[in-house]
Amino acid sequence: MRIRGLHVQDVRCPTSRFLDGSDAVHGDPDYSAAYVTLEADGVCGHGMTFTIGRGTEVVCAAVRALAPLVLERELEEITADFAGFHRRLTNESQLRWLGPDKGVIHLATAAIVNALWDLWARRAGKPVWKLVADLTPREFVGLVDWRYLSDALSRDQALDLLCAREAGKAAREAELARDGYPAYVTSAGWLGYPEEKVRRLCGEAIAAGWTRFKTKVGVDVASDVRRCQVMRDELGWQRELMADANQVWDVPQAIEWLGHLAPFRLRWIEEPTSPDDVLGHAAIRRAVTPMGVATGEHCANKVLFKQLFQAGATDYCQVDACRLGGLNEVLAVLLLAAHFGVPVCPHAGGLGLCEYVQHVSWIDYVCVSASLADRSTEYAGHLHEHFVAPVRVEKGRYLTPETPGYSIELRPEALAAFSFPDGTEWRRA
Amino acid sequence: MRIRGLHVQDVRCPTSRFLDGSDAVHGDPDYSAAYVTLEADGVCGHGMTFTIGRGTEVVCAAVRALAPLVLERELEEITADFAGFHRRLTNESQLRWLGPDKGVIHLATAAIVNALWDLWARRAGKPVWKLVADLTPREFVGLVDWRYLSDALSRDQALDLLCAREAGKAAREAELARDGYPAYVTSAGWLGYPEEKVRRLCGEAIAAGWTRFKTKVGVDVASDVRRCQVMRDELGWQRELMADANQVWDVPQAIEWLGHLAPFRLRWIEEPTSPDDVLGHAAIRRAVTPMGVATGEHCANKVLFKQLFQAGATDYCQVDACRLGGLNEVLAVLLLAAHFGVPVCPHAGGLGLCEYVQHVSWIDYVCVSASLADRSTEYAGHLHEHFVAPVRVEKGRYLTPETPGYSIELRPEALAAFSFPDGTEWRRA
Repeated sequence: MRIRGLHVQDVRCPTSRFLDGSDAVHGDPDYSAAYVTLEADGVCGHGMTFTIGRGTEVVCAAVRALAPLVLERELEEITADFAGFHRRLTNESQLRWLGPDKGVIHLATAAIVNALWDLWARRAGKPVWKLVADLTPREFVGLVDWRYLSDALSRDQALDLLCAREAGKAAREAELARDGYPAYVTSAGWLGYPEEKVRRLCGEAIAAGWTRFKTKVGVDVASDVRRCQVMRDELGWQRELMADANQVWDVPQAIEWLGHLAPFRLRWIEEPTSPDDVLGHAAIRRAVTPMGVATGEHCANKVLFKQLFQAGATDYCQVDACRLGGLNEVLAVLLLAAHFGVPVCPHAGGLGLCEYVQHVSWIDYVCVSASLADRSTEYAGHLHEHFVAPVRVEKGRYLTPETPGYSIELRPEALAAFSFPDGTEWRRA
Repeated sequence: MRIRGLHVQDVRCPTSRFLDGSDAVHGDPDYSAAYVTLEADGVCGHGMTFTIGRGTEVVCAAVRALAPLVLERELEEITADFAGFHRRLTNESQLRWLGPDKGVIHLATAAIVNALWDLWARRAGKPVWKLVADLTPREFVGLVDWRYLSDALSRDQALDLLCAREAGKAAREAELARDGYPAYVTSAGWLGYPEEKVRRLCGEAIAAGWTRFKTKVGVDVASDVRRCQVMRDELGWQRELMADANQVWDVPQAIEWLGHLAPFRLRWIEEPTSPDDVLGHAAIRRAVTPMGVATGEHCANKVLFKQLFQAGATDYCQVDACRLGGLNEVLAVLLLAAHFGVPVCPHAGGLGLCEYVQHVSWIDYVCVSASLADRSTEYAGHLHEHFVAPVRVEKGRYLTPETPGYSIELRPEALAAFSFPDGTEWRRA
């Protein structure tokens, strides 16, 4: 199956009009994507990288720069040595200068690599999680470029870990098919929402069966205390509450500030400081325990995750489906997290992230961690209507993805409306 | 002085034809730049970000995405609160998703910010280093966005450090004017050069007065040993030898491999593993002492440098003039390095990096570290002829930059030849 076409589209939804997604540093996000379509002998594979508006055209330019490495290749040749192919993409001798393995070039890599996964899974007639679950442990470790990881986890150790999980895979698949995967909801607590809207959304989410909630903090202590109080008023003390600071604090400032939020029994504080600050997260974690520290949505690559685990810097691994170089690198992080005993609670929301990470959580439980303890996957209720096979959520749990592929194909109506700058929504604006 | 125009050009020199710049991971670099010109009331300011060929167009796209934040602003308004302006650039609410503070968007930030410095210095009629040297300590710390640094170094601590260096500034300026700044040479040891060429270039460099040399390693142990032996044959044991592995090893592999290179008494091993691996560099450093560990040219931002210093991960700080978000962030790193007692030996070579970093080293000695101990600035002898005011080097030392600005303006002939893809050199190819 030869890859004969690669197209990339700049797609932007005007979410900033309603402050959906607003937080302490992203005041006006337009949930967007660099959307990649691969054409291969009559089948299309789709992948995207989530962005938040301006600059999506830069990621599209990076996708075009990487395209010659994919075009005219055989899918079977790529998947037969996917780790090797991944290395060629991330280590291209001139493009690697733009990263390496971080920022725009890595976001673009993710869109392409995830489109390859979509293509592979469609051809296999399986959802991506099931394609991975049906691989042998040896095939699984062959998906990962092990460079830079061996001081924390070797390929052989990972193989042993996966072999030990083989027993019970079928039972865990059946369990998820019956019960779904635990989720938490973010979309009640955006920073730009007025208090009444937050109260109403909490009430609606409780009525729908949600038990885990996240709010945004980081503006000033008084208003953060107020927001947590409002959430606790609505949720009571039995439901779980997390808070997300979106990188606003210095390390000493985070520690001082979080003292004021301690009474609200937050399960975790998310991104309390720079996402690059492994040692800073470790210092904050030591100071605020028993409050947990969570990070990962802006973690640039597997080497940063490795260090977060080595340094004991995080209680929760919030891996993102697009910021790393596609699913192959996410699998490396799942293995590292399992080795270090850190629960994976993927970052989601945005445009398409829920659609992606359901597969990640399924793979984590069925193949890698074999545990649901202290785990839940983020959910936000925006923009799912634009996908051909949107996530399904019931009573606070994701339901099993069943459609072949990586669930990220956009509906033609969405592309016609939100293509930037020529879509009907943008011409109208 | 209002900034009325911002132009960006993709400029590429076909250096790969001669394997200039070749190393273990960059086999065929075409030394390139995203070259920014600001127009302001009859004066032009120039800045660039160094790249190595393919993908330069992606950095140019990022420059265009940032341009609206600069256009129609007054230079005086920017320089009056340069830290605040820098924060607005790096923290733009939608563009920050593409980093934050790393990769393409940060490289583009550097090109723009450095062009602003060039403009400011031209207006002041001074080279950039002298513009900075003539600021008060309070003005100096006002150039830095202190966010994320306070657990290592506060603004007030930095102010104290700079005040303590005020005495002796004039004498250090005079000393550099008389003696120049110590440099080392890389351009004899590119990996793609045949042995005879390396021997010839070493001999020529020794004859020209060079006493510090760097070679490239990381291919295989036997050929690395051979290369170090060839260098030592030519240099003897009195001259200094460093080696650069350009990120090729895992941590345990680096430690094992470097055991074989220990007999050559390397002053430092540079980039032994992933540039993001703070803890890995620390582990290697502990294992290979007394060989030094150097890193920084791919260090993404000040938060990574902070951690390299906090973790005791590096003996030498090889800050780059383009990879951080411009001179303002470089100044933060100089202050951190001085606070932790780590010598700054800037990364250079490429296209324009020597022109840039001479200013960095002058600022470091005159204002910040006040020390030349164990310090030398990289030099490679390529492509200086394309600059209006190229670096001047004599007997292994940089001479004082005297031309107003940041020394990065390209000659019109160079732009006509190397603009990509329409320059005469590329149309001919």
